[in-house]
Amino acid sequence: MCGAGDMETSAMIKGIGVDVVEIRRIREMIRKYGDHFLQKVFTPAEVAYCEKAAVPEIHFAGRWAVKEAFYKALPRECQTMSGWKSVEIVPGESMVPMVLVCSDFLKSGMDKCGIERWLASISHEKQVCVGVVVMDGKE
Amino acid sequence: MCGAGDMETSAMIKGIGVDVVEIRRIREMIRKYGDHFLQKVFTPAEVAYCEKAAVPEIHFAGRWAVKEAFYKALPRECQTMSGWKSVEIVPGESMVPMVLVCSDFLKSGMDKCGIERWLASISHEKQVCVGVVVMDGKE
Amino acid sequence: MCGAGDMETSAMIKGIGVDVVEIRRIREMIRKYGDHFLQKVFTPAEVAYCEKAAVPEIHFAGRWAVKEAFYKALPRECQTMSGWKSVEIVPGESMVPMVLVCSDFLKSGMDKCGIERWLASISHEKQVCVGVVVMDGKE
Repeated sequence: MCGAGDMETSAMIKGIGVDVVEIRRIREMIRKYGDHFLQKVFTPAEVAYCEKAAVPEIHFAGRWAVKEAFYKALPRECQTMSGWKSVEIVPGESMVPMVLVCSDFLKSGMDKCGIERWLASISHEKQVCVGVVVMDGKE
Repeated sequence: MCGAGDMETSAMIKGIGVDVVEIRRIREMIRKYGDHFLQKVFTPAEVAYCEKAAVPEIHFAGRWAVKEAFYKALPRECQTMSGWKSVEIVPGESMVPMVLVCSDFLKSGMDKCGIERWLASISHEKQVCVGVVVMDGKE
Repeated sequence: MCGAGDMETSAMIKGIGVDVVEIRRIREMIRKYGDHFLQKVFTPAEVAYCEKAAVPEIHFAGRWAVKEAFYKALPRECQTMSGWKSVEIVPGESMVPMVLVCSDFLKSGMDKCGIERWLASISHEKQVCVGVVVMDGKE
């Protein structure tokens, strides 16, 4: 009884997601569909950030990978609440990207599922990007 | 004293595994060794599922990656109890594969090690697949 | 009140890191910069271990990937305490590499941040290596 409050603070893993993206595939989608593709998948801040980079498609690919990994890590009932632009990848300090949940609808769904924390990591090579997301929270 | 029960519910990370597979390598193994290879590594349900796909080797490679990642995430004392077909990768809803532990021997070993949960994620590209598995449980 | 001690034992995810490395890139760095590169990035034990392997650059690439993933998983305040040789990748049994924190400075920083555990996994293919690190601990 007396420990009931503590139980709620005990965290467990709630989700994991990984995504690997061949940069060439993103480059081709940008070439073929241009702004239409970019505006469907990325927020204005993400587009602005990537387009400032020397090789924008590497950064678009990295953000794509983290968005996909985040989606896969979500509980199923939250996935239906989630679209490409429900989250924004914010370039964190020291190579650690932050995933901002922009959609209040999705955020409240994640709260209901007990998700308290999510962490992301991203890696770029010449040909591929990999994104990983892990979530934890209470039972 | 009164909190002893709660301590057992507090989870910690017990294992992580990652595996990257070049699909070409799986394709060559299927070409060379055919059913002998498939039946050694995959359960009948996994074979049936992958062979229905347009490009079966992509799905065999993905399952291979998750099996390897699961094995790497296991505590060492459980790895010796584990073979290729001790687990079955079940295509979950919404891109989330489930790892079913088919072997009672392995399952009881994992119980003894305090492993309560395991989550998997998988990603396919044209040339590579990546699988990740994370496990948590009590101390 | 009575559960206060338990709360401190409840673990949460503190960091995740992923790194993908094209082996060709490491091979070129070894060819260009040789020992200067190896001694800057790897500990003597790591160099000795990799150079005994049939294809050393695969193992150097794997260690590079785990070092990068470890760095990304660290809290920001610990990253500034960390260099290439602050950690040593020890070939664990059964395909599970261990990350030894060699630097007392970094170790005490991680303690202050509440990091209690870190687990790593590594995967090698012909062209790429992937490393993943996850950390947990108390709030």
